[in-house]
This record gives sequence, structure tokens and C-alpha cells, in this order.
Amino acid sequence: MAKQERLVKMRGAIGDLSFITPRKRLLTFFFLTSHFLFLTSYFCTMHFSSRLLEQAVEEFGRLPGVGKKTALRLVLHLLKQSDGEVSRFTGAINQLKEQIKYCKTCFNIADVEVCEICSSAKRDHETICVVEDTRDVMAIENTNQYQGVYHVLGGLISPMDGIGPADLKIEALIERLRAGTIKEVILALSATMEGDTTIFYLYRKLKDFDVQISTIARGIAFGGELEYVDEVTLGRSIATRVPYERNVG
Amino acid sequence: MAKQERLVKMRGAIGDLSFITPRKRLLTFFFLTSHFLFLTSYFCTMHFSSRLLEQAVEEFGRLPGVGKKTALRLVLHLLKQSDGEVSRFTGAINQLKEQIKYCKTCFNIADVEVCEICSSAKRDHETICVVEDTRDVMAIENTNQYQGVYHVLGGLISPMDGIGPADLKIEALIERLRAGTIKEVILALSATMEGDTTIFYLYRKLKDFDVQISTIARGIAFGGELEYVDEVTLGRSIATRVPYERNVG
Repeated sequence: MAKQERLVKMRGAIGDLSFITPRKRLLTFFFLTSHFLFLTSYFCTMHFSSRLLEQAVEEFGRLPGVGKKTALRLVLHLLKQSDGEVSRFTGAINQLKEQIKYCKTCFNIADVEVCEICSSAKRDHETICVVEDTRDVMAIENTNQYQGVYHVLGGLISPMDGIGPADLKIEALIERLRAGTIKEVILALSATMEGDTTIFYLYRKLKDFDVQISTIARGIAFGGELEYVDEVTLGRSIATRVPYERNVG
Repeated sequence: MAKQERLVKMRGAIGDLSFITPRKRLLTFFFLTSHFLFLTSYFCTMHFSSRLLEQAVEEFGRLPGVGKKTALRLVLHLLKQSDGEVSRFTGAINQLKEQIKYCKTCFNIADVEVCEICSSAKRDHETICVVEDTRDVMAIENTNQYQGVYHVLGGLISPMDGIGPADLKIEALIERLRAGTIKEVILALSATMEGDTTIFYLYRKLKDFDVQISTIARGIAFGGELEYVDEVTLGRSIATRVPYERNVG
């Protein structure tokens, strides 16, 4: 009953629109939908006035996080620069790709055979920090909290992306442990599925060596408000609580 | 009085903390501030393990909207690609810079001397649409609403950036008008300070020619809700209202 009443009411409300002829209604419909179609078509297909421009935009668009529109903006920016600046840009990339070396010991990016950290006498060569890539080395170096050396895996085990243990520098790490001078291995990998898988794999591979295997602490971040922390992190940070003196001292 | 009461209350509340010795307080202070310092230093200075890497990151960081962290991510992505892919990337940019041509007539980016639009017999060569750059040509072409030809200025008058009328293709536009075949000039420039300045300058330069000078319509965008539209736009869109038939028909 209530439903029927509402229907009658609605019919009354739209009754006033009956003066719109079917033709006008159709026109309005096309008019209103057309701009949505234009908008979508603009983002789906871009018509370039030049094949060279299209090629360059396509290449830029392959970079991670760079869409077609951003790519076009970057390419047009480069076009406005002088010849010297553009050749310096492409030259830097080519030179990097051709001449870059990876440290023989830790596989970090370097200009020489053995990187600065591995060849430094000031570092503690009995502790190895295992990281994913050079960005993690930079992040840890910036904390000024670590004096040991590194081992860069070059990725994480990720079956989804087709990356298995053989694709990483795990054999080389075991080789370093076989030398017998290492006392501790710190696994400083991301707290993701891939990171945890890699940690588990490494632990099983390394546990028979006479070294201490540790992972970096997990818990709430500095400045993090308790109510916004996810349950897993908060739960684990309670379970793995540390004496207050250790935090301050 | 109320202020003093509050002070007494506050003293009572922090009275319980008096067991913290000055030494501990100092330690806590350093402990709490240190991570802020680390965070800022991380973003200010990046220590690269390789000069080549640093150079490439610096070059990428010069692109508009690309910060140091993004630049590093892009460079590391390129490093992971095969030699062929990287040389194709840099090759596309070099080729674009070396071989790109600008249409003799409209100054749009093209692979040939005269661009597709300018050489097309299907286009209306009596109407010129004046735009800032090739992106605007692409945007207008995507609407499928314009059948005339273009004139790409290559920028907008912007004293702040040191761009004057002489830096733009304005003389060439006047030259095109002098030929006498043009009937309408549409100024399709951005609705910004620079766009308006350029429109005003162009209007004064072109008003003596026997052509109709028009600008693209300004008003509320499709899908735009009235209450969120700024006053200037809304006010102008009321002042420049159009008969309903023109919108639908």
C-alpha cells in the first residue's frame, strides 16, 4: 500500500515534465552523456601529431608510476630544454647502465669492484645486514645506527612475480658465512608477505651455521598513535615488549 | 584567578613525574627528538654508493614533479631492465630531440614540414584556433568539435618567468592573418592570469584585422555542482548566460 502511494506521488512529481517531447528528451540525453564519452576517450586514446613524440611518451609511460599524461608532460619538458641538457640526461642513464658495477662482496651498487663500506676498516665485518636493494642500504646508513657490513639480495622471493631463491644473491651470502668470520646476520627485509617468505627461507638456509640470526624489530612507529595501529602490529608489539631501560638507555 | 587555579591544577598533574631524574629526562628528550632529526636528514641528504647512480638520479630529479625519491625509484627500475630496453628509452628521447620538427604553418609538433591538420583538405582553413602548446591541440582534437586549423604559441606571456610576446609565435600568427583568408580567430588559452594577459595582448594586436576574434566559453563545468563553483566563475556564467535552445540544439 505504502509503496503504491509513493509511486502515485512520484508520478505526480514528474508529471510536470510531460511537456518535454520525446525528441527533446533524446537530445538532452545525448547531450548529457556525450561529455562523459569524450572524457573517457581522451584518457583511453591520445592522438599524437608526431610518431617520434608518441614513441618517447610510450617509453616514459613504461616507468613505474608514470601514466600517459605525466609521460607527455615530462617529454614536452625535455623538448623545451637545450640539446646539451637532453644529451646530459640520456648520457647519464646510458653511462649508468654501461659502467655501473656491483660490489663483489655485498652486491651493492658501486663504481668500483669492492664498495666503500666493504673496503672500510672502520666497519664491523663480523655483522652482515641482509637487505633487499640499495635503497635499504641508504636508509639504514642514514640512521647512523649500524656499523656492520651489508648483503644486498637484489629482490625478495615472490612466486607471483616469478622471482625464486635462485634469482637472488642467497648462494653468495651462504658463501660469505662459510668463511667463518661472521658472527651475526641481521635480516632487515620489508614486513610484507614477500619479505616474510624470504626471511623464512633464509632462516632455514642459515640456521645450521654458527651465527646469530636476528630480524629488525617490528612494532608501532615513532609518532604512531595507538588507536590507528593495525591489530597484528599492536598485538605483536605487546607480545614482544621490551624492558623500558632498553628503550631509553 | 581562574588562570592561577588552572596552573595549580597542572602542577598537581605533573607532580607525579617528579621521580624522573634530570639525567633520565635528558635521555628521553634526546631519544624522542633524535628520530625527527634522522627523518629530516634522510630527506635532505641522500648518500649514494655510486657517483654514476647519483648523477642519473640528479638528472631525473630535474624533471618537473619528480623528487629525489621518485628519481631514485625510476633509475633503479631502469637499472633492472635489459640493455636493449634502456637504450631504446634513451634512444627515443635523443631521436625526438634531434629529429623533431615543428609545422611551418601552425608550429605544432610534427614529423614533417607541414603537419597533418594544416595539410588536410577536410579542415576549415578560414578558422584558426590559437593554443598554448601541443597538449591543447590534442585535447581539442579529442572533443571532435573543431574542424578548423590551429596556431601553437609555444607558451603564454608570463613576465614572472621572463616570457615576453617576442618569445611566442605571435608575429607568425599576424603574418597568417595578413594573407587575408582567415575569417575567425578563436583564442583557446587557459583561464589563468598568464592566459588572460596573452588573450588581451593578442586582441590588441589582431583587432585591426577584418576577422572575428572569439574566446572559448567560460562557465561551470559539466558535472560541476553550483554550490562549489567559485564566485567569479558563477557570476560570469550568469552574466554571460545563453538561451537554452543553443545548449540543447
